[in-house]
Amino acid sequence: MLARSVSLTPLSFLRRSADVFPDDVAVIDESGLSISYAQLYEQSAHLADALRDSGVRAGDRVAVLAPNTAMLLVTHFGVPGAGAVLVALNTRLGPSEYTYILNHSKARVLLVDTTLVEVVHRIRADLTTLELVVEMGDGVAMAAGSTPYAHWVSASRAGPGLVSPIDESAAISVNYTSGTSGRPKGVVYTHRGAYLNSLGTAISFGLARDSVYLWTLPMFHCNGWCFPWAVTAVGARHVCLMKVEPARVLTLIADEKVTHFCAAPVVLNGLVEHTAGDPVVFAQPVRVATGGAPPSPTTIARVRAMGMDLTHLYGMTETYGPSLVCEPQERWRAYDDMTLAATMARQGVRTLTVEQVRVVDSAMADVARDGASVGEIAMRSNTVMAGYLDDDAATAAAFHDGWFLTGDLAVVHPDGYLEIHDRVKDVIITGGENVSSVEVENVLMSFPGVVAAAVVARSDERWGEVPVAFVTLARGAAVTAEDLVTHVRSQLAHFKAPKAVIFAELPKTSTGKIRKAVLRESLRAGG
Amino acid sequence: MLARSVSLTPLSFLRRSADVFPDDVAVIDESGLSISYAQLYEQSAHLADALRDSGVRAGDRVAVLAPNTAMLLVTHFGVPGAGAVLVALNTRLGPSEYTYILNHSKARVLLVDTTLVEVVHRIRADLTTLELVVEMGDGVAMAAGSTPYAHWVSASRAGPGLVSPIDESAAISVNYTSGTSGRPKGVVYTHRGAYLNSLGTAISFGLARDSVYLWTLPMFHCNGWCFPWAVTAVGARHVCLMKVEPARVLTLIADEKVTHFCAAPVVLNGLVEHTAGDPVVFAQPVRVATGGAPPSPTTIARVRAMGMDLTHLYGMTETYGPSLVCEPQERWRAYDDMTLAATMARQGVRTLTVEQVRVVDSAMADVARDGASVGEIAMRSNTVMAGYLDDDAATAAAFHDGWFLTGDLAVVHPDGYLEIHDRVKDVIITGGENVSSVEVENVLMSFPGVVAAAVVARSDERWGEVPVAFVTLARGAAVTAEDLVTHVRSQLAHFKAPKAVIFAELPKTSTGKIRKAVLRESLRAGG
Repeated sequence: MLARSVSLTPLSFLRRSADVFPDDVAVIDESGLSISYAQLYEQSAHLADALRDSGVRAGDRVAVLAPNTAMLLVTHFGVPGAGAVLVALNTRLGPSEYTYILNHSKARVLLVDTTLVEVVHRIRADLTTLELVVEMGDGVAMAAGSTPYAHWVSASRAGPGLVSPIDESAAISVNYTSGTSGRPKGVVYTHRGAYLNSLGTAISFGLARDSVYLWTLPMFHCNGWCFPWAVTAVGARHVCLMKVEPARVLTLIADEKVTHFCAAPVVLNGLVEHTAGDPVVFAQPVRVATGGAPPSPTTIARVRAMGMDLTHLYGMTETYGPSLVCEPQERWRAYDDMTLAATMARQGVRTLTVEQVRVVDSAMADVARDGASVGEIAMRSNTVMAGYLDDDAATAAAFHDGWFLTGDLAVVHPDGYLEIHDRVKDVIITGGENVSSVEVENVLMSFPGVVAAAVVARSDERWGEVPVAFVTLARGAAVTAEDLVTHVRSQLAHFKAPKAVIFAELPKTSTGKIRKAVLRESLRAGG
Repeated sequence: MLARSVSLTPLSFLRRSADVFPDDVAVIDESGLSISYAQLYEQSAHLADALRDSGVRAGDRVAVLAPNTAMLLVTHFGVPGAGAVLVALNTRLGPSEYTYILNHSKARVLLVDTTLVEVVHRIRADLTTLELVVEMGDGVAMAAGSTPYAHWVSASRAGPGLVSPIDESAAISVNYTSGTSGRPKGVVYTHRGAYLNSLGTAISFGLARDSVYLWTLPMFHCNGWCFPWAVTAVGARHVCLMKVEPARVLTLIADEKVTHFCAAPVVLNGLVEHTAGDPVVFAQPVRVATGGAPPSPTTIARVRAMGMDLTHLYGMTETYGPSLVCEPQERWRAYDDMTLAATMARQGVRTLTVEQVRVVDSAMADVARDGASVGEIAMRSNTVMAGYLDDDAATAAAFHDGWFLTGDLAVVHPDGYLEIHDRVKDVIITGGENVSSVEVENVLMSFPGVVAAAVVARSDERWGEVPVAFVTLARGAAVTAEDLVTHVRSQLAHFKAPKAVIFAELPKTSTGKIRKAVLRESLRAGG
């Protein structure tokens, strides 16, 4: 590369927005903070200097534990701006999970929101690499053993502020997988990948200067699908939200003139339930991106009926968040609502900055584009993780010939659109036939009164495995197991119908994914 | 860089649009051609294979000489897809200029439009490296010594089609400067730079999937400011136009539902004159980007009065076209039309993919942000040229400590926006005072009846140099030299007023820039 080539890094986005839109509001949060782009830059630079002054060096990991606040946004620039690597922790983990991740990532510094500091001090003695706990918040509830953020920063020596990496393939962050099975793995993102995914997402999701982005998605989840950087790139406004409650989301959309937000299907279902599916009128167009789990056609139709423009994105921690988009086609305009919803429920095609996506069989050959042949989704892209931190075996297992194997099973339709059938580990094999849990769930979701559904395998002496459904009903809905089994049999092959239906609240990960491993375990335990 | 990092190249944009929008119209041109994205991909791949089959190897230069046609767009993918380097030639050069550029670039193959083939055969004997002339067109007028394109491609062996470079800093094209003084220089663009500038321009200019882009800008000019790649990236439609005539432009905007086009100020003035400045009503919003020369506030106000949304971009061949954008600010909404036009006439701030822009004095120190201190614009960016082809001395002279020196003089306003005062070589120094030719031209342009104005230096025994104005009037305008001198003196310091006013058509380069060197020469010759 030429000497005058400049490293690609999201730090450049903040530098530009601070130069060009210094007085525009960059971020507001629920503590009442309103920070301009000039201030966001300044605070990020001060954080970088304070980290350096505390002995943090290039490549060191710095962890942060906070709900969606302006300060969490600051760490997305300040930590990499010091040459360090950001480890944003899920706010809903337990003590043993925090201990594992902080030790595994060898975090030297932890920045923690006041509201979450208690668990940290409980595990403090078990943290083998942590040297410094800095507490962010209003300073009232500072715990013993914490350094108050404001004091720490103001007492630090001035330094060079935000510094771009010399090598754009340097790590910018580590995101731990939600660990639906086994120990969480640390997914390494690079400055180059984050820069490119941010631009691709900005274009795919139509982010622009006058956008207002609501932080319904946790910023700790895949670095908020790179939106901390993408929203900043276009100079739009971040609106932080700490707790996702339907009434609060709808109020903020109206009051703050929100134009864009992201939400897992489970969050969308909550909004639909809250509004009873009635249209909601806003002064501005509202665009919502959904992903994180396959949205059912029913969910899509209901969200559209509320008057929101829906974009369906697909991705995973290992792909910096969004890597497929269900790009709308001109000819779809002629479709009726349910046909359109079913079409949009497909995961789609690669985003602009993803190089190649294939669906392959076990010999790495492409499956037929027939909407029926199932294979595994494989990707090549600058926006595929560098690898799992300190886990060469898992990294090697995740790649084949330079292709990242996602673990998601999909078909390719004749128009080239991918549709996910299942996670590899969630497929149910009954009497030699594969059953897609997603397919059965979508049919269950289309039954009036069903709010959520999960289908998992139960061991069976005769069939090997059989499908069992866990279903959550809307308040007051009078739906029987027999109703649902009859409904599924009317739509799908009979062997796909659940052998049992259990009405229950579904256990979810902190990012809204249903914990199917827990459901399977409950069946093994005789539940 | 990691093994799984993928080279950044605009070839990826075409691959994706062909995969995702195969049946959508990619380009229409005036020969009646309408090519889908699948066909654009296929034709580009066939061109790449034909070039390889003709012996073209990685790094070889392939020249093309054509007006804005679908085929010229094909060469922007097919030539780099063969690993070769595209040299798009200005269609309005003379035989000696073609000879110089083809020999200097060591072009092995020339693809030429039928309408332009004659000049090539006239100079054929002087072309020292050219091995093959392929003639593009309807095949009726094939000249002796040309190979017809369709035959050449269909007779070629199938090959791998479009192949991305292993190294993203490989050259993608060479663009020869318009040579307002001296020999044209060959500006080398890379795949990486073209990829990044395309994404930055798409975001700055608001290109999206449903955009329709009219090719008023010559595609041979800085590779059409990277729009062949940017428009393709978002899957929008190219509408090719061979000759820029106001009536034709307005008809195409209406008929083809054009949403975006680019035009030098001289083209905008033509549109304004054609419509007598009356508002033009289109069914769709129309956004025009202007650049290539500083637009006067008068031009900006007139274009806005026509009902078009104007974006002011600044750039040059060495910066892949656009590198500054006059990014609109919220507070400007309160401005009256003329204040807004004057504000928008400033060149502005860096685009998203430009890393750093400064205005520096001769010691490379930043000038004050006072709107008065003049310095030279300097840039660092992935979107600055790799260098001048086979001209190490000129390359070295263009850079200082990794900063590209643009040769443009500007001030920085307190809000950080740059405003160009002049090219270094166009400044007039009279009695020890610097006069910005652009400033005086803007005042002349604001006088009713003035269509174009250029101010240059004439040698003067007493003052060293004095300003002289060349002015073009609208048909029927009764304006005297005295009117104009009085007008300038009412607005500016008296020493800035022209000492003479000459009414004339102004000589222009093929890209619409006024040839001030010619005007200066005419004064020296006693004109």
